[in-house]
Amino acid sequence: MTQRISADLLVVGASELVTCAGPAPAAGQAQADAGVVERGALAARDGTIVWTGPEDELERAVAPAPDARTLDVGGRAVLPALVDCHTHLVWAGDRTGEFARRLAGATYSEIAAAGGGILSTVEAVRAAPRERLAAEARERMRRMARWGTTGFEIKSGYGLSTEAEIKLLRAAGEAVEGTPFLARRTFLGAHTLPREARGSRAARARYVDEVVGEMIPRVAEERLARFCDVFIDEHAFTVDEARRVLEAGRAAGLEPKLHAAQLAPDEGVRLAAELGAVSVDHLEHATDDDLDALARAGTVGVLLPGATLFLRMTRFADGRRMIDRGVPVAVATDVNPGSCPSESLPLMMQLACLRCGLSVDEAIVAATKNAAVAAGLGDRLGTLEPGRRCDLLVLEAASRSELLYALGSQRTHAVLAAGRTIVGPPAGQSLRLS
Amino acid sequence: MTQRISADLLVVGASELVTCAGPAPAAGQAQADAGVVERGALAARDGTIVWTGPEDELERAVAPAPDARTLDVGGRAVLPALVDCHTHLVWAGDRTGEFARRLAGATYSEIAAAGGGILSTVEAVRAAPRERLAAEARERMRRMARWGTTGFEIKSGYGLSTEAEIKLLRAAGEAVEGTPFLARRTFLGAHTLPREARGSRAARARYVDEVVGEMIPRVAEERLARFCDVFIDEHAFTVDEARRVLEAGRAAGLEPKLHAAQLAPDEGVRLAAELGAVSVDHLEHATDDDLDALARAGTVGVLLPGATLFLRMTRFADGRRMIDRGVPVAVATDVNPGSCPSESLPLMMQLACLRCGLSVDEAIVAATKNAAVAAGLGDRLGTLEPGRRCDLLVLEAASRSELLYALGSQRTHAVLAAGRTIVGPPAGQSLRLS
Repeated sequence: MTQRISADLLVVGASELVTCAGPAPAAGQAQADAGVVERGALAARDGTIVWTGPEDELERAVAPAPDARTLDVGGRAVLPALVDCHTHLVWAGDRTGEFARRLAGATYSEIAAAGGGILSTVEAVRAAPRERLAAEARERMRRMARWGTTGFEIKSGYGLSTEAEIKLLRAAGEAVEGTPFLARRTFLGAHTLPREARGSRAARARYVDEVVGEMIPRVAEERLARFCDVFIDEHAFTVDEARRVLEAGRAAGLEPKLHAAQLAPDEGVRLAAELGAVSVDHLEHATDDDLDALARAGTVGVLLPGATLFLRMTRFADGRRMIDRGVPVAVATDVNPGSCPSESLPLMMQLACLRCGLSVDEAIVAATKNAAVAAGLGDRLGTLEPGRRCDLLVLEAASRSELLYALGSQRTHAVLAAGRTIVGPPAGQSLRLS
Repeated sequence: MTQRISADLLVVGASELVTCAGPAPAAGQAQADAGVVERGALAARDGTIVWTGPEDELERAVAPAPDARTLDVGGRAVLPALVDCHTHLVWAGDRTGEFARRLAGATYSEIAAAGGGILSTVEAVRAAPRERLAAEARERMRRMARWGTTGFEIKSGYGLSTEAEIKLLRAAGEAVEGTPFLARRTFLGAHTLPREARGSRAARARYVDEVVGEMIPRVAEERLARFCDVFIDEHAFTVDEARRVLEAGRAAGLEPKLHAAQLAPDEGVRLAAELGAVSVDHLEHATDDDLDALARAGTVGVLLPGATLFLRMTRFADGRRMIDRGVPVAVATDVNPGSCPSESLPLMMQLACLRCGLSVDEAIVAATKNAAVAAGLGDRLGTLEPGRRCDLLVLEAASRSELLYALGSQRTHAVLAAGRTIVGPPAGQSLRLS
């Protein structure tokens, strides 16, 4: 008889254990399935998964420690907790009024003239103490956790000066400290041009010089980010500027990421593939050649359908085509105050199904395994398999499909991080589903 | 000095009191504004509003009873609780698997062949005990209340036999009994043809005869519904059948409502205007002539953008054009297992803004005052003014715009029904916002 594995947490009673386990996305590989174990069980020790399998094999495989807890999920579906791989969740200021004016027909320049737009967020972030930025970001993450998210990628990009970018990245670190969340930070100094760089070509060049020559070295030296990102757009940065920034970042040890092809096709997607970026995000206007390059490079394509909806655009990224051409696809909230203030990753997954062509299991893999890879958390989160942290989303439903089906509704029964319940079932609701 | 009004509940500390008060929608009238009182206060007695106004006039106008409670909302926005004026919230069965198959590319006939579609819901409802239908509907309403809804219209239409329609309407009544919710029921025997009526023209005619000759008299006699509704569609009922059903209903005391112009233009919208229907719902394909007729009749046009999204259609009802032509506009979830299983009325309001062209205040009026009229609850809910029940939605935000802005996020701080807190602020979150 083989040695039984020791565990201090057993999760039993699952209708479906959605492991998302399997090989990491690789070039030319179609979307992996969700690795569902019907009536599956899971065992963990010290917050790390040590075993998964059919529940009727649990006793033979696992030896519970004397103080082991058993969590009976009562016939519910159990998934990996979600990973939000594209967020701008550290910000200050209030742009609800700008939203109301936009709906009432105000143009971009009218909103800017009234003190709105991204530069109003930059002003508010520059003025905010770091402690307040961290506290507000932490509250945002707590609310997002109620939807099942425990892993986050967090971008800078509302500071746009060396000091303010550093402050923002430190605030992102502080926001996570002492919480059950896991996060990776991304330096996005090249998010947009600050007001002081908009006057002339020379001022613009000086800003890119500052990003490359001052910000990146500081960020790398103080280990404030894992990734370096650039927003390629007519109103942001050119492909040449992006290449310069990302190459400088890579030389300093920051892995490349990109925002590309959101509002029009651009060379950014192919740049991402060329540089071996971990992800390229948006892709509403990506071409077939772009997608083939991504598939060859193994770069994750990140869908941000909430931004398409919130900006009242009609062209969603074609997730179906991406998957069919072999691109590993993730989905994220893009949570930010200007183009998508949504805290619900399940809503984004639903939009990925209803507007980007994904299936139920593709959407689940997109917000777990593939998102964890894109967030730099692939070794910790995103799948249920030995060695990963025990972060679980227990649905208030017997079928994983309910998470995609129940449009905009709340279907969280419980969320666990490192084996501990961080979002509990509402009192009196912990009955058996089946 | 005038007599002060006696009250047992004072609501203070509101950043904005969004009263939605003003004249009821009438022919040719543009969308009313949201009647916002900055730093407004409210007083109630025995669960009914007795006074609203600026907080600095409260003391002069209102005499608190000795046992009066004061609810300080801490700088948050206070709105009328929401009213969901188009729901099919009594159902049984599970169509999540059908949804997954539809996303994976299954056609309508493949789904029907696999036992899916609306007839699978009809089968499940016919087989379900009334008590279980009531209990599941009540749970659904409780979840919907967390999004701010306390008033409901509830349709039948999954029984499609006299006994099963009666059972469903009784279940709807039982679901509400003993709860803090207010509801009005709608008889929708003419929702679709039951399987047994699909074989021949004669069988179809017999079904319409049963609706008119048996169901309507029973429903009216047992006072099981306020409204009578028909789904006009190529796959449901013709305009002539609808006229016959609605006229029979009206003769029996049931006010007319209609589903029309969802998938193609039809004569249903003008029939609704001609019959003076309280509402006509869907309207994705309504023409300008249709809208002008509705405006003249004062019929509320109900937007159901969640169904458009969930059915993966691209043509949303043009709420902007409806308002501009003088139609009073409401918005609802349409919650049902086949075409929109959403419990979030705020998400529908957001879609009404982002996809149907409404402003923030128009969307708020659409889910409160105008929805209450469409649900037959206009004398009880939908506005904050003396005589209305004290049903409030306290936002986790200082501005009402946040409810529309925070896409898919949860912004409920508290919900009151008849002056009692039915959804409370999460523990430790009841701090001042400002």
